[in-house]
Amino acid sequence: MLNKIVIFGVGLIGGSFARALKHAGAVRTVVGMGRSAASLARARELGIIDVVGGDMAEAMRGADLVLLAAPVAQTEAILGALAPHLQPGTVVTDAGSTKSDVVAAARRALGAKLAQFVPGHPIAGRETNGPDAAIIDLYIGKKTVLTPLDENASADVERVAAAWQACGAIIHRLTPEEHDKVFAAVSHLPHLLAYALVDDIANKPHADLLFQYAASGFRDFTRIAGSSPEMWRDISLANQAALLVELDAYMAQLTALRARLAAADGAAIEAVYANAQRARRQWIEAIETAETPQPKDSAE
Amino acid sequence: MLNKIVIFGVGLIGGSFARALKHAGAVRTVVGMGRSAASLARARELGIIDVVGGDMAEAMRGADLVLLAAPVAQTEAILGALAPHLQPGTVVTDAGSTKSDVVAAARRALGAKLAQFVPGHPIAGRETNGPDAAIIDLYIGKKTVLTPLDENASADVERVAAAWQACGAIIHRLTPEEHDKVFAAVSHLPHLLAYALVDDIANKPHADLLFQYAASGFRDFTRIAGSSPEMWRDISLANQAALLVELDAYMAQLTALRARLAAADGAAIEAVYANAQRARRQWIEAIETAETPQPKDSAE
Repeated sequence: MLNKIVIFGVGLIGGSFARALKHAGAVRTVVGMGRSAASLARARELGIIDVVGGDMAEAMRGADLVLLAAPVAQTEAILGALAPHLQPGTVVTDAGSTKSDVVAAARRALGAKLAQFVPGHPIAGRETNGPDAAIIDLYIGKKTVLTPLDENASADVERVAAAWQACGAIIHRLTPEEHDKVFAAVSHLPHLLAYALVDDIANKPHADLLFQYAASGFRDFTRIAGSSPEMWRDISLANQAALLVELDAYMAQLTALRARLAAADGAAIEAVYANAQRARRQWIEAIETAETPQPKDSAE
Repeated sequence: MLNKIVIFGVGLIGGSFARALKHAGAVRTVVGMGRSAASLARARELGIIDVVGGDMAEAMRGADLVLLAAPVAQTEAILGALAPHLQPGTVVTDAGSTKSDVVAAARRALGAKLAQFVPGHPIAGRETNGPDAAIIDLYIGKKTVLTPLDENASADVERVAAAWQACGAIIHRLTPEEHDKVFAAVSHLPHLLAYALVDDIANKPHADLLFQYAASGFRDFTRIAGSSPEMWRDISLANQAALLVELDAYMAQLTALRARLAAADGAAIEAVYANAQRARRQWIEAIETAETPQPKDSAE
């Protein structure tokens, strides 16, 4: 049982964490911190948090666990502000989509207290936001990746892991560098590609005609291009090195495929398409076995 | 009222066309043709077709309308087989995803009877196939693009348009070349890009690790990579010229975006992302206004 947790950012991610812990009976008091007084008041009204925090020293006093669930660009500022008040018994974690840069920010902001920071990334999201979007079961069956530091005490890592497990999440561990390479490939690159395609089409002189005939395949392919440009600009920059590696590999792949298309090499094109279809089918089967049931997915 | 129609291919596309016309009371007799005796028998059993056609001369006798809904690679062979039996009062149309190559095939196969062929492309699909997948309302509110030829009599074009309208479709007209340019951009290129990404990831030494962390954004982005490799190989080759143009434009876009990322030019990256998000939002709003209600869609 956590006696007191402090959550910076009481929207979808932070609010759902609080809701799930309360639902599991795993926390006594939740203090909410954030820049928006309206969001904090709403989170209190909804019962997501018990206390609207104001003074940093008071908020941090006796806290077992602190979760940073504000936009990642605020990470260093928040850590810098809480550092002087961070007591020995408190563990801090975060929910940012990139980890190497978060670790670097923590190193700068926390200094000698770095060991108390256990970086994390819950792999869950929705298209909604704010306290009203927070739900009890956002993390059930989903992965939370922890990227512990050499400096972390194992008991502190365990405290963070146990909290996420109480939310229903499955704990995975990677190094910050592994994490950033993996998500550059399976998340950050697809976002960049989807944004690039929609921008490419939108800038053509006959864009209106093109959009008129875009259908469900285009809709799904570009869904992630509906995401926040600011957030994904920050992620792209924060994970620049790994993203450039993945982008270069993909552009080399496109160059090779272009050559096959120009040569009308049907067998080679089909080999790429068939390998992709097979790999995707295996992946879908694997996640459908591993996770909670999801809507049936297949080719169009 | 159409007295008699002949459908080559009684699966999702052809079967749904027959079902919708029957439901609308717009056809008296539907003859099904195809390579699979089992599919034809099943279509008859389901009431999709009235007659399992065998002899080409008999099938074509007195037909008002013929729809080719078999895989596009069979188009020329089917047109060649029916050409000798094509009577003056019959109009032939198709449902292929590319049009320039279909028109070229029709020109070769039909010769002097080319005027009786009105090319078409219903913009509707599902992940299912075969006669059991055929449904009454597949085309309601969806576009059917006709790409009439200079040789077509307007009454013949109207006959095809009226049949699709009886199915609930909205008729659009493009030239075959316009059609292929448009679908190269909004459909064929995204398919190629999705296949390329999954193949790229599947071929990496740490593919298993990567797939383990792929989540819902990746799932939607790559859904079209679950499509039939053979079908999309054929489409890629059939629309090679237009697809190469779109692929080159997209690769130029990626090259420019890569330079911005390498320069850590956050403002320029955000401008691309924001333009894409805005364009996509406008498009979603436009189609939600124009079409029948669909599941609410938004950014993740």
